[in-house]
Amino acid sequence: MAAARTVLLTGSNRGIGLELVKQLLGSPRPPAWIFATCRDPDGPRAQELRDLASKHPNLVLVKLDVENPSAVTDAAKVVEGKLNGMGLNLLINNAGIYTPTASLDTVDAEDMVRTYKTNAVGPMLMAQAFLPLLKKAAQDSKEKGLSCSKAAIINISTILGSIKKTPDSFFHPVISYRCSKAALNMLTMCQALTYKEAGILCVALHPGWVKTDMGTQEADLTVDTSVRGLLSVLPILSEKHSGTLLNWEGKAIPW
Amino acid sequence: MAAARTVLLTGSNRGIGLELVKQLLGSPRPPAWIFATCRDPDGPRAQELRDLASKHPNLVLVKLDVENPSAVTDAAKVVEGKLNGMGLNLLINNAGIYTPTASLDTVDAEDMVRTYKTNAVGPMLMAQAFLPLLKKAAQDSKEKGLSCSKAAIINISTILGSIKKTPDSFFHPVISYRCSKAALNMLTMCQALTYKEAGILCVALHPGWVKTDMGTQEADLTVDTSVRGLLSVLPILSEKHSGTLLNWEGKAIPW
Ligand SMILES: NC(=O)c1ccc[n+]([C@@H]2O[C@H](COP(=O)([O-])OP(=O)(O)OC[C@H]3O[C@@H](n4cnc5c(N)ncnc54)[C@H](OP(=O)(O)O)[C@@H]3O)[C@@H](O)[C@H]2O)c1
Ligand SMILES: NC(=O)c1ccc[n+]([C@@H]2O[C@H](COP(=O)([O-])OP(=O)(O)OC[C@H]3O[C@@H](n4cnc5c(N)ncnc54)[C@H](OP(=O)(O)O)[C@@H]3O)[C@@H](O)[C@H]2O)c1
Repeated sequence: MAAARTVLLTGSNRGIGLELVKQLLGSPRPPAWIFATCRDPDGPRAQELRDLASKHPNLVLVKLDVENPSAVTDAAKVVEGKLNGMGLNLLINNAGIYTPTASLDTVDAEDMVRTYKTNAVGPMLMAQAFLPLLKKAAQDSKEKGLSCSKAAIINISTILGSIKKTPDSFFHPVISYRCSKAALNMLTMCQALTYKEAGILCVALHPGWVKTDMGTQEADLTVDTSVRGLLSVLPILSEKHSGTLLNWEGKAIPW
Repeated sequence: MAAARTVLLTGSNRGIGLELVKQLLGSPRPPAWIFATCRDPDGPRAQELRDLASKHPNLVLVKLDVENPSAVTDAAKVVEGKLNGMGLNLLINNAGIYTPTASLDTVDAEDMVRTYKTNAVGPMLMAQAFLPLLKKAAQDSKEKGLSCSKAAIINISTILGSIKKTPDSFFHPVISYRCSKAALNMLTMCQALTYKEAGILCVALHPGWVKTDMGTQEADLTVDTSVRGLLSVLPILSEKHSGTLLNWEGKAIPW
């Protein structure tokens, strides 16, 4: 299975996003271009990303806050210029926020809306803005069917967004996060149905419970293990997976 | 099965909300109090509701915009005063908005957020604000288990919020609406798990496709048939239904 030649990620300055960049760079056939986007590519939180970019000419840092619609379209223009006629094979919507304390006792409207904007509206805006580049990649590809090497949107979701699985994990209520990710799962289904004709695969992936700032050090998986899993799932995805939620081992999770 | 003695509804000036008020008033054992809330109880859009209130002393009109957190808590104070020591048996979160044209091509961040605020955040705020009155009703009840006559939150959701069922109805993409209602379904599950101990039943109901301003005259069901169905489902609900999505005939819908 071929690998994606051009990849863009959001929230790539730390956590799962940064590890995805590292493992993509270190893969046997690294992408021709990796667009690692983050909110503040010149600030202290992007130091590791800048160090990587200084060693890897195929790594391009792009400023992008997924909450800001005009920042999203601005970033798409920058990427389009850099791609210079090529399409974008793979968009990974990874940026996300989480309020660990949000139970029904404490959650408020502001937290609900802020979390929804980043976790659900952001991925919707990203897909809209990068759609022409994703379509271009699909058109330029000789592959039949759908795949991540042709054109794909991967939304990093979570098992905490599965309504059916909620009773098993409600020791973390995290209401604002769960509601936003259930909406992201719905968005993924809608994207799969809408973008199928254009040749774009759309899948939601749960990375597991991962030791990052968000997951905390109590989590089950190292970021290395989770990202190794995610990157081994990508090449097996085909049209039958579009509009589904899978975990880092490729196992289906119910809605 | 006993009927709820005290009921509060949102968005009760037209459509399904108004018909719920009418059929509750006309039932063999009407509630002692029906709090019919709407955005503008003194304006032209609430004329029918005011006419009903002039004939039914158990019908109380209360101003309430579910998008506005302080309006929600203000309304809870008004209702508490009127109940004068009684609890609230049944909260029906019915108010909702819908952008019929919102495909992935056209939907924007503003529409996503506005729809989420009304359809998902509103019901969350309502349950928070009315929780003490719902708890009071549960404590004062001699019934075992969970029921709508004891204490319940009914969130009016939709089959369009079912991710699993989306491929069957995607001729109406309505992205902002679907995402908000998938989030409402998640909220319902979280409410069921959180409020179970307090003796409060939490269920999401799909009214069918109904001839209202939202449903249009192309819809399948008259508002009379839909509401007759919904009101015949309420008395059969018990703990086994808490945290589920059912249609107006009591049939389960997958997430
Ligand atoms: N860790 C887990 O256990 C776990 C489990 C399930 C799912 N996930 C999902 O995996 C994804 C990555 O999580 P993580 O554990 O790596 O989280 P993390 O360590 O907290 O990192 C979050 C990343 O998202 C970025 N971000 C937040 N808001 C943004 C915005 N508005 N625009 C652009 N970037 C933004 C952050 O950038 P800044 O540095 O600028 O804040 C950061 O790069 C998230 O979608 C999360 O929901 C994580
Ligand atoms: N009709 C259908 O086919 C259908 C199908 C599935 C689910 N539903 C659901 O059923 C519920 C009622 O729908 P409907 O068909 O009766 O819709 P409708 O005829 O459009 O009426 C909507 C009601 O919600 C109120 N509302 C909207 N935003 C509000 C806010 N911020 N605060 C308070 N009230 C607000 C409206 O008040 P104003 O007059 O002030 O605008 C109106 O009373 C909704 O939750 C809808 O999603 C309907």
